[in-house]
Amino acid sequence: MDLKPTKPLSGFIELSPAQQRCFDFCANKMQRVLRGAGFNRLDLPAIERAEVLTDKDNWDEIETQIFLFQKGDTKMGLRYDGTVGLSRYVAGHLNNLVFPFRAYQFARNYRGERPQRGRYREFWQMDIDILGIENLSENYDAEIVATLLKVYDSIADYVGGVKVKIGNRRFWNAMFEYLNLTTEQSRDAFVLIDKRDKIKDFVPALTEIVGEKSANEIEDVFVSGYQKFADKSEKLSAAITEMDEFMEILKSMGVNNAEIDVSIMRGHSYYTGIVFEFFSTKFPEMSAIGGGGRYENLASKFSKTKIVGVGASVGISRLLVSLMDEDKIDLSEFEYNTDVAVLVMGKQNVKYSMNAVSILRENGIVAVPYLDTDKKFKNQIEYADKIGAKFSMIIGDDEVSNATVSLKNMKTGEQQTLSLNDAMNIIRG
Amino acid sequence: MDLKPTKPLSGFIELSPAQQRCFDFCANKMQRVLRGAGFNRLDLPAIERAEVLTDKDNWDEIETQIFLFQKGDTKMGLRYDGTVGLSRYVAGHLNNLVFPFRAYQFARNYRGERPQRGRYREFWQMDIDILGIENLSENYDAEIVATLLKVYDSIADYVGGVKVKIGNRRFWNAMFEYLNLTTEQSRDAFVLIDKRDKIKDFVPALTEIVGEKSANEIEDVFVSGYQKFADKSEKLSAAITEMDEFMEILKSMGVNNAEIDVSIMRGHSYYTGIVFEFFSTKFPEMSAIGGGGRYENLASKFSKTKIVGVGASVGISRLLVSLMDEDKIDLSEFEYNTDVAVLVMGKQNVKYSMNAVSILRENGIVAVPYLDTDKKFKNQIEYADKIGAKFSMIIGDDEVSNATVSLKNMKTGEQQTLSLNDAMNIIRG
Repeated sequence: MDLKPTKPLSGFIELSPAQQRCFDFCANKMQRVLRGAGFNRLDLPAIERAEVLTDKDNWDEIETQIFLFQKGDTKMGLRYDGTVGLSRYVAGHLNNLVFPFRAYQFARNYRGERPQRGRYREFWQMDIDILGIENLSENYDAEIVATLLKVYDSIADYVGGVKVKIGNRRFWNAMFEYLNLTTEQSRDAFVLIDKRDKIKDFVPALTEIVGEKSANEIEDVFVSGYQKFADKSEKLSAAITEMDEFMEILKSMGVNNAEIDVSIMRGHSYYTGIVFEFFSTKFPEMSAIGGGGRYENLASKFSKTKIVGVGASVGISRLLVSLMDEDKIDLSEFEYNTDVAVLVMGKQNVKYSMNAVSILRENGIVAVPYLDTDKKFKNQIEYADKIGAKFSMIIGDDEVSNATVSLKNMKTGEQQTLSLNDAMNIIRG
Repeated sequence: MDLKPTKPLSGFIELSPAQQRCFDFCANKMQRVLRGAGFNRLDLPAIERAEVLTDKDNWDEIETQIFLFQKGDTKMGLRYDGTVGLSRYVAGHLNNLVFPFRAYQFARNYRGERPQRGRYREFWQMDIDILGIENLSENYDAEIVATLLKVYDSIADYVGGVKVKIGNRRFWNAMFEYLNLTTEQSRDAFVLIDKRDKIKDFVPALTEIVGEKSANEIEDVFVSGYQKFADKSEKLSAAITEMDEFMEILKSMGVNNAEIDVSIMRGHSYYTGIVFEFFSTKFPEMSAIGGGGRYENLASKFSKTKIVGVGASVGISRLLVSLMDEDKIDLSEFEYNTDVAVLVMGKQNVKYSMNAVSILRENGIVAVPYLDTDKKFKNQIEYADKIGAKFSMIIGDDEVSNATVSLKNMKTGEQQTLSLNDAMNIIRG
């Protein structure tokens, strides 16, 4: 019979036990920060109706990227981000939730696209949102950014520092209005500015869209700085003031690694105000490791009630898995973490040994028994070594008849025979 | 424009924030027990190749229950249990893992079947396995059962107590051999015994398969007890001794809620020895809330190496969600858990307030600011009440100019103006 393949499908993640421990440890730390900031966890279905996931507005962009399937008459698919499900959930629970509603998701999302390096088809993502009915102060945008910086900071020992760049969609809206651009020109200029650092001939390309004078003024935003445009129009002045005040609030929350960068746009069309992106300072070669912004009317497809909000997402798999796979995170503290391996010399000693295992675990000691009791001592101690046990507890006939255990320090090799209680004191250090 | 549906697809779970907190709390407690017993978490892909999920042996039984789909040329589907992925993973990492390998999974699984009450199409399940190469002592089976009882015990405050029933596939193999049944008769009798409590005319149905004499002897196992058959054959004697010794090891691990019940079979064909099922003692109307057993040659489809093991699964959604939905778990301690709502009276006080929020959180206090600063005090205090804040910290012009905060105990209504440090001492009790 042919054997089936043991590798996962390409684009799917498979971690070693130590990598998994690191991932879980970091994910827990990050979530603890969010719970401490009063965010409610939502764990929404990974499968949604196809009509919820797709619509005519963005069918081309999204549909080819979705895993779609059918059961009976129902077309459904796997979610590709946290926003669709959140919109549906909030619209369906307007009367049960307290607004501003603070939510976070830590969930797997799916992309059907052809996998590339650092892009996964199944990945864990954290989504953080604060939602209001009809309106929501932009102070919350600052709270989200400051909170996310704390989230990243909680795992800085493993992934290094982070900085955040703040942009403002309203700045460009005001700029385009000041330049008298048409709606079409504005839209095309927006797309170009979003890709500015990837395009060689930015000014010539922009000139084709908006003309030479406007192209030069837009380029001047990056050359001379956005501040220069504060006195050009009231709206430009307001947008710049908004960014400056935003920075002030961040500072009041202890944030000193934020900077204004008006080239930050965030691709999604639903952002309408402040936008932001997080970058690793330790690994500057990585593109943004998270980001988000302000959106208006999030759930218009699901409800006539206007839901306004600010949201962000952190690609946890993208960040942690890629660094672990490139050996950029030291995993030594996440190797096997067994306190004691309990080695049982002969089946007549299993009951005594298992009783010891129970007592050890009840006392918070990670105890792993070796229960193939007919195996030689050599094999058993080898196992203790392989699972990284700090101690081996050896239990044979003598130990059982004297109501003792033999405890071997796996690092020093020192061994002594003593009561289980005394052994526990040594294990606990 | 027609609005899209806000309900999830039928068979998919959607929890309230309080239900989610209860679920997460319980899931964490359960996993902590497993980590303390030295089990490695595996987080395997939810999507596997179709050929990994299905094969000719059990196509009919499984295939209609799987969500299958295709991307490009690749047929794939969503996993329906933890065993398939585990087999693949272990077969693919034989040289990197330490055996006996101890693994647990806490993951979503999927069933494409038509949803029924208490059956979900997407559900969280915990899988626990110990795997050996070529052979593995049955002492590990006892360790798994005892450990799982501790896992259930960790959430007994919420779901009540649990008992475990132990069966032995080898007892029935020995019984059928003693009765001289053919392979076909044995297989059919096995299926019938597995369904014994659901069948009205058990003995007549059994008689049709194995004849009157054998049917009466099998029925006598349930009437007079299995012990009676210990002297009928060596194999029966050995199977009964095995169960008795199993109970002895459980006792040595402090287990006093296990009993032998030879009617326990577990449907899956891959079990070969001891099998067990867990039942709620508080909710005896629930069918088994977990179970497992010994299997031989788990990964034969993936590897020529014989992988032997004992495994169990716990349907966490099945247990917790159904009880929560029927209001059988008191969720009062899982309602909003905000320590303090920080109410900001006027936008000029945002910076002072956000600085306070930062300091509160750094001190482990769950602080939620209300940042729509133009809202009236009445609205703000209402919000504090709705999110279950124990205290409100009110910050207006007076507090800012005196470098104080006003702290209101939401239960007693008592309010005082004091320094942030003194306020923190009161909040922390």
